[in-house]
Amino acid sequence: MVACLIAVLGATGDLGGALARRWAKAGLSVAIGSRSAESAAKAAAALAAELGCEVGSGSNAEVAAAAEIVAVTVPFAAQEATLAAIRDAVKGKLVIDTTVPLMPPKVMRVQLPPEGSAAVRAQRLLGADVTVVSAFHNVSAEKLARDAPVEGDVLVFGDDKAARARVVALAGQAGLRGLHGGALVNSAAAEALTSVLIFVNKTYQVEDGAGIRLTGHLVSAD
Amino acid sequence: MVACLIAVLGATGDLGGALARRWAKAGLSVAIGSRSAESAAKAAAALAAELGCEVGSGSNAEVAAAAEIVAVTVPFAAQEATLAAIRDAVKGKLVIDTTVPLMPPKVMRVQLPPEGSAAVRAQRLLGADVTVVSAFHNVSAEKLARDAPVEGDVLVFGDDKAARARVVALAGQAGLRGLHGGALVNSAAAEALTSVLIFVNKTYQVEDGAGIRLTGHLVSAD
Repeated sequence: MVACLIAVLGATGDLGGALARRWAKAGLSVAIGSRSAESAAKAAAALAAELGCEVGSGSNAEVAAAAEIVAVTVPFAAQEATLAAIRDAVKGKLVIDTTVPLMPPKVMRVQLPPEGSAAVRAQRLLGADVTVVSAFHNVSAEKLARDAPVEGDVLVFGDDKAARARVVALAGQAGLRGLHGGALVNSAAAEALTSVLIFVNKTYQVEDGAGIRLTGHLVSAD
Repeated sequence: MVACLIAVLGATGDLGGALARRWAKAGLSVAIGSRSAESAAKAAAALAAELGCEVGSGSNAEVAAAAEIVAVTVPFAAQEATLAAIRDAVKGKLVIDTTVPLMPPKVMRVQLPPEGSAAVRAQRLLGADVTVVSAFHNVSAEKLARDAPVEGDVLVFGDDKAARARVVALAGQAGLRGLHGGALVNSAAAEALTSVLIFVNKTYQVEDGAGIRLTGHLVSAD
C-alpha cells in the first residue's frame, strides 16, 4: 500500500463511493477499503479509469494503516466489527465516522444507541488515542454520486476543534458546505435527523432525497 | 374563562408570546396562560391592545381547561411542574409540547433526557389519554416575534397522524412551513438540533438565529 491522505472504508457502498469519487476528483489522494480487498480493488479500478488518476485499495485495515485520515462509511450493524479491525491502524489518527444508527426495518424511527450516538460509540470503541469526528449524516448519497451541486449542509461534530475544522474543509472539497456543529455528543442531532429525513422522503415523495440547510446569516468561523 | 381554540402556556416567554401573537393575528381564538394569572392577564391585555382583538388569560390550569388545544412553551426545568398542573384539564385533548431539553449552563451541548426526548417525557407525564404532538423546537423566537416571513421549517412529531396534521396546519397559520417528521420519538432529532443551532449561532455569529430548512423537492403530503 502506497501512503495516501484519506482512506474511505465502505467505499463499495453508496455514500463511501460518492465521497471517494468527489475527493479524488478534487485531487486528494484516496484509497478505497472494504472487508474484501478484491471488491475494493474493483471499485478503485473503476474510479481510476473514470477519473484518470491513481486510486489505492485494500482491506479496511490495510488502507487505514496507509492513510492519514480514515473515513468510515459502513452501516450501523457493521460499525463495531469495522472499528475493531482498524483499531490498531488508526492510533493517533483522525477518523471520520459517518455512521447513522438505523435499525432496519424501522429506519424511519429514531433509535439512538445506549451511548447516545454512533459517534460517541465509535470514540469508545476506538479509544482515547484516536480523534473521532462525525459528519455526512444527512447528505443524500444519490445526490452526492452525481456531479451537480448539492445544496444541503454537512454538520460536523468533534471535541477536537482543529480536527473538526479539517473535516469541515474536506466537506468543502467534496463540494458541500461543512459547518461546525459542536462537541461529538452533538452528533446525536444529525444522526437522529436521518430517520426524520427518510420519513420525509416517503411522506412527501422526495425522489432525490431531502437534506437540510441552515438558515440565517452565517459569518465565517475562521 | 371563555372557551377558546388554543391556550398558550408560558406565553409570557419569548416563544410562547410570539406564537400567541401570530395565531391571534391569524384570527384564531387564543388564551395566554402563565403560572401567575396576573402576568398572563398583563400579556393578554398588551396583545389585545396591539391587535384589537380579544385575548383570554388565566393560570395555566385555567386556560388549559378552557381550550381545545394546549401549547406548552415553558423551559425544560419547568416542564414537569407545568404538565402536572394541567394534567386533569387536558384529558382527551391535543397538547403541543415545544420543550427543548436545554440544561444550562451547557446549552450548546446535546443532553437528551433519559426518556429519549422531552416529547416522550411529556407523553409519559400526561398519560395515554392525552395526545401529545411536539413542534417549534428550531424556530428563532426573535424572528417569530417580528412580522417578517420566517424561512425555517417546523418539524412536527406525533404518533397520531390527524393530530400531527392539525399542528402542521397551525404552523402554517403562524406563517411557517410545518412538516410531518414522524413518530413522537423522532422529536429527539429536532430537540437535539436546538443545541447545535445555539452552537452555530455563537460560532458563526448568527445575529438573528439560525434555523433549518429541508432541501429537496417536497410534494404535498395531503
